Amino acid sequence: MSLIVQKFGGSSVADAERIRRVAGIITDTYKDGNDVIVVVSAQGDTTDDLIEKAHEINAKPSKREMDMLLTTGEQASAALLAMAIEALGFPVTSLNAWQVGITSDSKYSNARIKTISDERLRRELDQHKIIICAGFQGINKFDDITTLGRGGSDTTAVAIAATLRADLCQIFTDVDGVYTADPRKAPNAKKLNEITYDEMLELASLGAQVLCNRSVELAKKYRVNLEVCSSFKRVPGTIVKEDVKVEKMLITGVAKDNNVTRISVIGLDDIPGVAFKLFSLLGQNNINVDIILQSIGRHGTKDISFTVASDNTQTALDILHECYPDNTITHDDNVSKVSVVGSGMQSNAGVAAKMFEALYSVGVNIQMISTSEIKISVLIDRNDSDKALVAIHDAFI
Amino acid sequence: MSLIVQKFGGSSVADAERIRRVAGIITDTYKDGNDVIVVVSAQGDTTDDLIEKAHEINAKPSKREMDMLLTTGEQASAALLAMAIEALGFPVTSLNAWQVGITSDSKYSNARIKTISDERLRRELDQHKIIICAGFQGINKFDDITTLGRGGSDTTAVAIAATLRADLCQIFTDVDGVYTADPRKAPNAKKLNEITYDEMLELASLGAQVLCNRSVELAKKYRVNLEVCSSFKRVPGTIVKEDVKVEKMLITGVAKDNNVTRISVIGLDDIPGVAFKLFSLLGQNNINVDIILQSIGRHGTKDISFTVASDNTQTALDILHECYPDNTITHDDNVSKVSVVGSGMQSNAGVAAKMFEALYSVGVNIQMISTSEIKISVLIDRNDSDKALVAIHDAFI
Repeated sequence: MSLIVQKFGGSSVADAERIRRVAGIITDTYKDGNDVIVVVSAQGDTTDDLIEKAHEINAKPSKREMDMLLTTGEQASAALLAMAIEALGFPVTSLNAWQVGITSDSKYSNARIKTISDERLRRELDQHKIIICAGFQGINKFDDITTLGRGGSDTTAVAIAATLRADLCQIFTDVDGVYTADPRKAPNAKKLNEITYDEMLELASLGAQVLCNRSVELAKKYRVNLEVCSSFKRVPGTIVKEDVKVEKMLITGVAKDNNVTRISVIGLDDIPGVAFKLFSLLGQNNINVDIILQSIGRHGTKDISFTVASDNTQTALDILHECYPDNTITHDDNVSKVSVVGSGMQSNAGVAAKMFEALYSVGVNIQMISTSEIKISVLIDRNDSDKALVAIHDAFI
Repeated sequence: MSLIVQKFGGSSVADAERIRRVAGIITDTYKDGNDVIVVVSAQGDTTDDLIEKAHEINAKPSKREMDMLLTTGEQASAALLAMAIEALGFPVTSLNAWQVGITSDSKYSNARIKTISDERLRRELDQHKIIICAGFQGINKFDDITTLGRGGSDTTAVAIAATLRADLCQIFTDVDGVYTADPRKAPNAKKLNEITYDEMLELASLGAQVLCNRSVELAKKYRVNLEVCSSFKRVPGTIVKEDVKVEKMLITGVAKDNNVTRISVIGLDDIPGVAFKLFSLLGQNNINVDIILQSIGRHGTKDISFTVASDNTQTALDILHECYPDNTITHDDNVSKVSVVGSGMQSNAGVAAKMFEALYSVGVNIQMISTSEIKISVLIDRNDSDKALVAIHDAFI
């Protein structure tokens, strides 16, 4: 008998029919002789609807009251899912974060889990109950309700799996696993049977939005075996774990990220400390910089180019215009970052060359390049990004 | 400085505009230098919508999960009301029953409050915060969420007022007070400035649905001064308390109840124990009987007539047909109970006579009569009920 934690996102429980389908998955797992703890998100668009309702009343509500409001979504879906399981004749109980004992810090809207009590969960499991736990919630030291930010329900699931040393934590999504590229863009994309935590982290941060980074980091830290699987198709998903057996692939995935803008500051003095000053300025304003390129400019000056997330573009430009009034500052929104990820490339030369060859073969110009131990990213024209993705994917996989 | 508890029902917070109006009432009370604790119900039709959602998934969900689902309604309206108060610039915090510490028994869907902790409430008041408390909820000994049944938010408000010895508990409703009769039926109905708990209890049980009986009973037990007032009109309401000063009115109100059916069992043996057997049978099946009339039938038999709440009619008829297969059983749905209530009638003869005279003057036939110390009820044809109400009202008031 195993202990399995299953997490279902908002689209998996969006209506009565989907809730019944999810109840079927859960009770099948239970019928196989497993203990089952389920973590569930708010139904479909509930959270957006609640945010809209709040803004009708107050353009800037406090985050504490916003969390009080939003967590009703998960409580409701947990109760409804429990009712669907009752209808199938299985013992079940739904629980909120305060009932489980999920404590967090006090950063309303973006709290971090501190501890999870296993007392109530163990007691319900001892009574052979299926447990439905409202995701995304925590309780701070004031006994106030917090929410865990984006991907919060994934984090709840992994944290519960870590606390109870569950045998497996299944994250059910719209897709049936992690693919070597977005299957909608690259028709030859293949589903991976296994992937390491680090590869998953690189893929997640590169725009392959299957799992939120925080939950993968947590899973890595506590060695929780994750499985990404579909709530619509009953097929095995992708296992995320520390060591991936069998013939390791050179490349595990190709990802594209459109949420990126290139900014260039032209004609900076070519003296020490210029880059330091520029990037510490951006850092102080919470703007993360990704790829950086420094080049020699005219007349003994230098130019510095870098990429930021598109939603930070305006803030970054405002700061730069204020601090560098004498320099030309340009930016380009029409770019994409395309990356290959794979722990196999650590011990393999020629990955970069093969990637650049693939881009050359379809006539794509590379604007910037960035590399890490298990990743190579290039910045290219956004109009070229789909054909670049397919070309790189098919070259490697 | 006084401590005032204010309760707002679902229709008072049905949309953003109404929530803003209620926030205005609350902050005006706070600006007058009072401590304010607010108890709020779910918005408008939220509860009905949630029940419908549940029934799409499970025709007979457990009451535990139903309570888990329904209490999200009060939590959401508490948060939204708090946001509206924040928008006006006042310090506020919303709280659930588990955060306040409202414990109840474990009768899901119809629980009774056991204790209320004053710790959290006092702490927030000490910080000069307006408190918005989700009504209708409790927490049982398992740390599970319960609901308090019909009129539950009224009960929450009165129980909090009793615990903190509040100076006043204001129940805001659609009407601006308690009237001598339903103003929509009797145009001459007058608003009462004051009424005793007992009179209010008789009126409430007679179909004047202003306050739920449990909350009035609780207010009477703990001597909580209640005020029934309007969330739409800023005028003084009706005070409910133990001793009503000034010239006591003979009659404080006239009420009509259409939720009533007359049932007759014809030709019972005229021997001892017949009535006992009949009514204990109904009692065992949780059917409350109201007015009872026994009359001599033909050939040494007797007939027994009584009234039950209309929703119990079919159950009562089924039982009677099974147990009295040889007797004729008739019933009449087209009846109304019209009652006069007033503690003044205890020391006044002639109230019944005056009531019957009023009915005679408009040609209404009395089918059954029932009296208590502060109440006289008659059963009449439902088609006559409105004119009977007006005639009785105008005779007394």
